[in-house]
Amino acid sequence: MVKIANRLRGLQQSTLGAMTVRCQELGALNLAQGRSQVPPPASLLAEGSRDFKELGHSYSQPEGLAVFREAVSDKVKRHSGLSVEPATQVLATVGATGALAATLTALLDAGDGVILFEPFYSYYLSALKMQNLRPEPVRLVGPDFAITEKPLRAAINGRTRAMIICSPNNPSGHRLTATELEIVSAVAEEHDLLVITDEVYEDIYFGPAPHLAAATVGNLEERTVTLGSLGKSFSIPGWRLGYVCGPELLISAIRIAADALVACAPAPLQELGARALSLGEDYYRDLRAMYDRKRRTLAEGFAAAGLSPNEPEGSYYLFVDCSRMGVTTGVEAAEILLENSLVGTVPGEAFYLAAPDRPYIRACFSVPDDVIAEAVSRLVSGV
Amino acid sequence: MVKIANRLRGLQQSTLGAMTVRCQELGALNLAQGRSQVPPPASLLAEGSRDFKELGHSYSQPEGLAVFREAVSDKVKRHSGLSVEPATQVLATVGATGALAATLTALLDAGDGVILFEPFYSYYLSALKMQNLRPEPVRLVGPDFAITEKPLRAAINGRTRAMIICSPNNPSGHRLTATELEIVSAVAEEHDLLVITDEVYEDIYFGPAPHLAAATVGNLEERTVTLGSLGKSFSIPGWRLGYVCGPELLISAIRIAADALVACAPAPLQELGARALSLGEDYYRDLRAMYDRKRRTLAEGFAAAGLSPNEPEGSYYLFVDCSRMGVTTGVEAAEILLENSLVGTVPGEAFYLAAPDRPYIRACFSVPDDVIAEAVSRLVSGV
Repeated sequence: MVKIANRLRGLQQSTLGAMTVRCQELGALNLAQGRSQVPPPASLLAEGSRDFKELGHSYSQPEGLAVFREAVSDKVKRHSGLSVEPATQVLATVGATGALAATLTALLDAGDGVILFEPFYSYYLSALKMQNLRPEPVRLVGPDFAITEKPLRAAINGRTRAMIICSPNNPSGHRLTATELEIVSAVAEEHDLLVITDEVYEDIYFGPAPHLAAATVGNLEERTVTLGSLGKSFSIPGWRLGYVCGPELLISAIRIAADALVACAPAPLQELGARALSLGEDYYRDLRAMYDRKRRTLAEGFAAAGLSPNEPEGSYYLFVDCSRMGVTTGVEAAEILLENSLVGTVPGEAFYLAAPDRPYIRACFSVPDDVIAEAVSRLVSGV
Repeated sequence: MVKIANRLRGLQQSTLGAMTVRCQELGALNLAQGRSQVPPPASLLAEGSRDFKELGHSYSQPEGLAVFREAVSDKVKRHSGLSVEPATQVLATVGATGALAATLTALLDAGDGVILFEPFYSYYLSALKMQNLRPEPVRLVGPDFAITEKPLRAAINGRTRAMIICSPNNPSGHRLTATELEIVSAVAEEHDLLVITDEVYEDIYFGPAPHLAAATVGNLEERTVTLGSLGKSFSIPGWRLGYVCGPELLISAIRIAADALVACAPAPLQELGARALSLGEDYYRDLRAMYDRKRRTLAEGFAAAGLSPNEPEGSYYLFVDCSRMGVTTGVEAAEILLENSLVGTVPGEAFYLAAPDRPYIRACFSVPDDVIAEAVSRLVSGV
């Protein structure tokens, strides 16, 4: 019999996907997956409809359409001061997932170690496994989940070649500060590490301070690859449009890998995506205000149910400490929420290699207001 | 300095992409890349425009939308008698390139050997390198480029785990016969090999016999993964919509890899793609008639220029023997065609690991009729 690859051993359908299936079976509200149920900007859909016939339906170059790369360059410059040349330092990718796969393929070899800060977005682990890379966890401690120097240094060994950071963070909601990024910069420089920074939630943050792009801090620029996405900012995760920015030498290597893995990002959607990226600041302000309201309402629901939601600084998840349920694991907590309240969430275990310190669950608030209201009502009456 | 991965050593921008850039610089006609310049079906563009706002813009499940998988299952059944369960044996992918990357990731381990029949589509080699797989060439001989038993058996060694076949073939235009596929079946069974069959040109063939899907021959079904694409059949390569069909156990492994590599195929385009797949037989007949005309016209041009085009049985390329130019390599032949006739083609060397037997070039005829006419005129006067 034809076999499957060793790297797939022990891997199965993601916890996130499995919870979605269970929600469907039980008729539960699905706050599990980051499967945005918020509609895309009306203007973007109207333009898509109007111009669909005239869009380019053939391949783009592997690096993406110039108009898309220019729009990315403009947008990151405008929002965080990150400077990248559209012609040589930006690559269109099949979402940030595709950006990460191409980056790992292009820049790391089998057996290399990659630092992951727990809790981490679970796709990082699958992506590392696909390339036979070694996850090297650094445990961050709630409720702030800040990066500190000592545990980071302790995790680094002779095989460590890279680290993955994420800000605003999925699932913790933490935004990395300049102080934390200075630590990352110093340690990365000392050990000549590649830094992969996942900034797909860069437009979704709460509070006045603009997005702080890792590559703008300390000496990080020369060794940092920034992953971005249009999925979160414009509620179009299904378009599979992301990008990676970084030093020319690294981007040209990632381009070769991306070409071999997927040929190019969806070309007609790149054209439309470029226009989305150019939406005015009002759009982004409204987006943040909308998510801020959803965040507060859902957090009040969890608090009213006697649980301890965090106060995320960004991204669209609550990371809720369910200790007061009297359980010891997030798996138990998520099961109780699903069974008693018909609210689907993700157990914290999905974001850790070893057992989390507390029984966490993650709840996504990128859902319509009526779903939030119904979730709050179920939480209050059901837990 | 941050380094790039060992697997990228020696890899650079593809010959195909490089020729496209040179064509742009020189103002040459580009018959190099399979970058279809033929328009998509008008009905598909009209529906896309009409329904764009109502399409699903969030993720699909990693395996793709049910409506897409059902349309694939129906279509392959109708066209070649290949039977696959939409729920468990079909996976939507980011083009056939994404299908191949996910298949190699899911089913093979670093160091495994993979048989490639020369001439082969050059992306296979890049895809193998990305997974640290070993290409094991089997040289096929023109003008028919048929698979025979002896050289295939001679190439197999203790590390061989898979083979990649392609029919209708890019670049040779050859369609594998039942006799050849019986050989593939017998050898694959004897050595317990995975068979990856690239059938992206399944709708583009010349002559009355319908497409012969490899998985319908001999005992191939249980060990064969079929790669397909909507890019060629509907002139929408930029949509990045492909699929992989095969035994449930293999597809469920490939699904895990595809999820980790790209999350899912573009979801709104899957919805439209499903409708394209359901177009009536008239559409496919007209498609073949159109390509048959283009093929004949372009072949007459090469013949009138004193060269020896093949007569492809399928796909949309001519594979032209340029011996009569007095050159020994395809690189020289392509350069002369580019410089003297301002017609860009791909040197045969791009489709071989070692030097080809003859100075071949590949010319793509998936271009508008006026481009074909102009190419013919330049060939006749310029070579």
